[in-house]
Amino acid sequence: MIDKKHLKKLSSIVGDDNIYSDKAHLIAYSYDATREHFEPDAVLFPRNEADISEILKYCNEHRIVIVPRGAGSGFTGGALPSSGGIILGFEKHMNKILEIDMKNMVAIVQPGVINMDLQRAVEEVGLFYPPDPASQDYSTIGGNVSENAGGMRAAKYGITKDYVMATRAVLPNGDVIKAGKRTIKDVAGYNISGILIASEGTLAVLSEITLKLIPKPKMTKTAMGVFSTVNDAMEAVYKTMASGITPVAMEFLDNLTIRAVEQTYHKGLPVDAGAILITDVDGNLEDDLDYQLSEIKRVFNENGCTEFKIAQNAKEAADIWFARRNASQSITVYGSKKLNEDVTVPRAVLPELLERFYAIAKKYDVNIPCFGHTGDGNVHTNVMVDGKDPEQVKIAHEAIVEVFQATIDLGGTLSGEHGIGLAKAPYMRMAFSEEEMNLFKSIKMAFDPNNILNPAKMGLN
Amino acid sequence: MIDKKHLKKLSSIVGDDNIYSDKAHLIAYSYDATREHFEPDAVLFPRNEADISEILKYCNEHRIVIVPRGAGSGFTGGALPSSGGIILGFEKHMNKILEIDMKNMVAIVQPGVINMDLQRAVEEVGLFYPPDPASQDYSTIGGNVSENAGGMRAAKYGITKDYVMATRAVLPNGDVIKAGKRTIKDVAGYNISGILIASEGTLAVLSEITLKLIPKPKMTKTAMGVFSTVNDAMEAVYKTMASGITPVAMEFLDNLTIRAVEQTYHKGLPVDAGAILITDVDGNLEDDLDYQLSEIKRVFNENGCTEFKIAQNAKEAADIWFARRNASQSITVYGSKKLNEDVTVPRAVLPELLERFYAIAKKYDVNIPCFGHTGDGNVHTNVMVDGKDPEQVKIAHEAIVEVFQATIDLGGTLSGEHGIGLAKAPYMRMAFSEEEMNLFKSIKMAFDPNNILNPAKMGLN
Repeated sequence: MIDKKHLKKLSSIVGDDNIYSDKAHLIAYSYDATREHFEPDAVLFPRNEADISEILKYCNEHRIVIVPRGAGSGFTGGALPSSGGIILGFEKHMNKILEIDMKNMVAIVQPGVINMDLQRAVEEVGLFYPPDPASQDYSTIGGNVSENAGGMRAAKYGITKDYVMATRAVLPNGDVIKAGKRTIKDVAGYNISGILIASEGTLAVLSEITLKLIPKPKMTKTAMGVFSTVNDAMEAVYKTMASGITPVAMEFLDNLTIRAVEQTYHKGLPVDAGAILITDVDGNLEDDLDYQLSEIKRVFNENGCTEFKIAQNAKEAADIWFARRNASQSITVYGSKKLNEDVTVPRAVLPELLERFYAIAKKYDVNIPCFGHTGDGNVHTNVMVDGKDPEQVKIAHEAIVEVFQATIDLGGTLSGEHGIGLAKAPYMRMAFSEEEMNLFKSIKMAFDPNNILNPAKMGLN
Repeated sequence: MIDKKHLKKLSSIVGDDNIYSDKAHLIAYSYDATREHFEPDAVLFPRNEADISEILKYCNEHRIVIVPRGAGSGFTGGALPSSGGIILGFEKHMNKILEIDMKNMVAIVQPGVINMDLQRAVEEVGLFYPPDPASQDYSTIGGNVSENAGGMRAAKYGITKDYVMATRAVLPNGDVIKAGKRTIKDVAGYNISGILIASEGTLAVLSEITLKLIPKPKMTKTAMGVFSTVNDAMEAVYKTMASGITPVAMEFLDNLTIRAVEQTYHKGLPVDAGAILITDVDGNLEDDLDYQLSEIKRVFNENGCTEFKIAQNAKEAADIWFARRNASQSITVYGSKKLNEDVTVPRAVLPELLERFYAIAKKYDVNIPCFGHTGDGNVHTNVMVDGKDPEQVKIAHEAIVEVFQATIDLGGTLSGEHGIGLAKAPYMRMAFSEEEMNLFKSIKMAFDPNNILNPAKMGLN
């Protein structure tokens, strides 16, 4: 437990209104989307960068742990105060879009801005912020940057890191640093923004983020392909991308997922299909979109597509997307406990990856429905078991180890989107050598020599 | 001077054929494109990553300086052995394209591969590697990554950092690390590739680089706009980019540059124009290219363009590009000494930046012809004086300080492409605070505690 005198000092920095240490708030801030929970000692809402700087300087001097937190929507426990300490929350004050600079196509935001609020604000003026994690309605830009969030549109538009032009951040010693500019190019000094992205709040506290925007494409079209086997569908994915067409999205649902959605929502989905692929294309000219769709149809058909449907209007597009958007909750038909991973591989090994996953499912006699962002090789892999049966939960964890091993064997990564946090920390040594872990630790030490910032995350303890 | 016993040991690592310490070679490796020169103590050509590891381990133990070197085509002295030591050269052995993975659209290369060799190899199979620095015919991918090279196509396609998916590198202690994967997304562990990009060989020695490729667009068209004033042209630049069109290139030549090219080559250029803008658009459909050009023409005309010409064939396109490609050598008509900077600002302040530069030229009574990559805010700013007149050279350096100050005042960076190296090191404190410099030094220490890797670069000494 943190000493009362520290709370008093911290209270004097942010004001009494901006520090909570009552039980109700400590419980409210003890959770994220992992269902794990750890109570912090207090929750602070800095009003501005100067507050963050004072808080960090004091906490660094007194070795008090700080855990920066966005919306707490993470899947890996990155925002959980697993070693106690202070939660820094940005939702109360530091949640402003500071500027949308239309001339330079740049947005300047505070870390607590909600992703969708930014998307809406920039689209109103004809601009576009592509990263759209599934949590976009509530997750924050600070959290998105700290985890390097992806989304449905990554196949064409990339992920959060591709849009971060500059950051302001506060180091554990209280120093405020600016990294990058409102410029496309900047090669002066080390790429500090580059290392802060995906650092899960372990190196510095973001205080301001400058994001690249792009012109909003004038139109989008949606199509769906049905495949007899998941293997055919996976072949079609990488062959489409390599054909010269770059669809905005190229999502898939496997048979187990299709059946789960159908069982839950009765939408008339093809329950015997091996997989469905859902794709969006965009651009400024109808002809261009039609060209892209005709190419996709050609490649799909050459790779075993049995039905190809282009949405004729917004309602048909929404109907096609319904299955994908409701996949995650539907698969709970297979079990109350979901071990949900977001492994990512080079696209061309997707067929083999899925084969391996189904073999693991067979070996452990569990269901592993898969869906996700095949356009960038990212497969949401869900080992589903009965959460009330400890034996099944144990089996599920054994299966997950094999899921990771198969992914790594095929040149993939433990995480495409969700980060490491606490949940994947035990698997870091499967993916990284001792030399690589040592380098991570040296970098952590360079920024945070007293290890006060979000300690014990990313397997760095 | 390095002890003979060290040379003997290093020779035993790489073999006698792969170490040079004779005067002719030391002189040959003492230069880069800055015209500064510093002789190394020896030049080593590692045959593979294991050689690099052994060399670094030995040199780290004996505190021997290592300077990795690409083609020596840098403009800031990044590859110069300003503290003596060992040059590591990759042009003899580690210059192979190891794989072009068409299914995943990825190339795996060694650091010594020449940029244009890679471009040609991937274009032969229908793929595209966009970064095209002016040095593309001789500069290496290792050098490009170490400096984060840009090029003509950055306005649409970004710069080197946007294509680096993964790196293998050797740390000063000899540890080999792998960072990133052949995947679009990877958020496991710190973004080591992100910090190695643009680190100018000061943190680790790159041994292998995995690059993202994209489908080669089927066609390109070129156009040129003539403007009465440079201000009109600069307004047209950012308004085009913000209009929803993203041209591949949006290059400019100012009046002094136009006149220099005309004086040198007699091509019938409009010598009274305030500026010329040259633009390329690309895509897969003729209609799409025509749409892009019609939009560019509209925005140009709304912003004072007096003549807009679309190249009707490859020869006309080459004629339009001739002026831009020959700008750099032509401006030597204004003086034998060129202080050539590559400052970059947010696009919307380009009009004001150019105004400030011409005011500086007037104040110091020097010519400052400007040209470059306005599509990404990057202006090649050349203070031209008589190199034989020490007074003029002194004046030129004073003018450069004001060029940097104007750039920084307008939210720009010291360097968009060329890096800091030795040449811009004295100006780092204009751009970075003491806290930021301290962070850079901490990062340097985390990778290279004995400061053996390319020391005294980037103002970090």
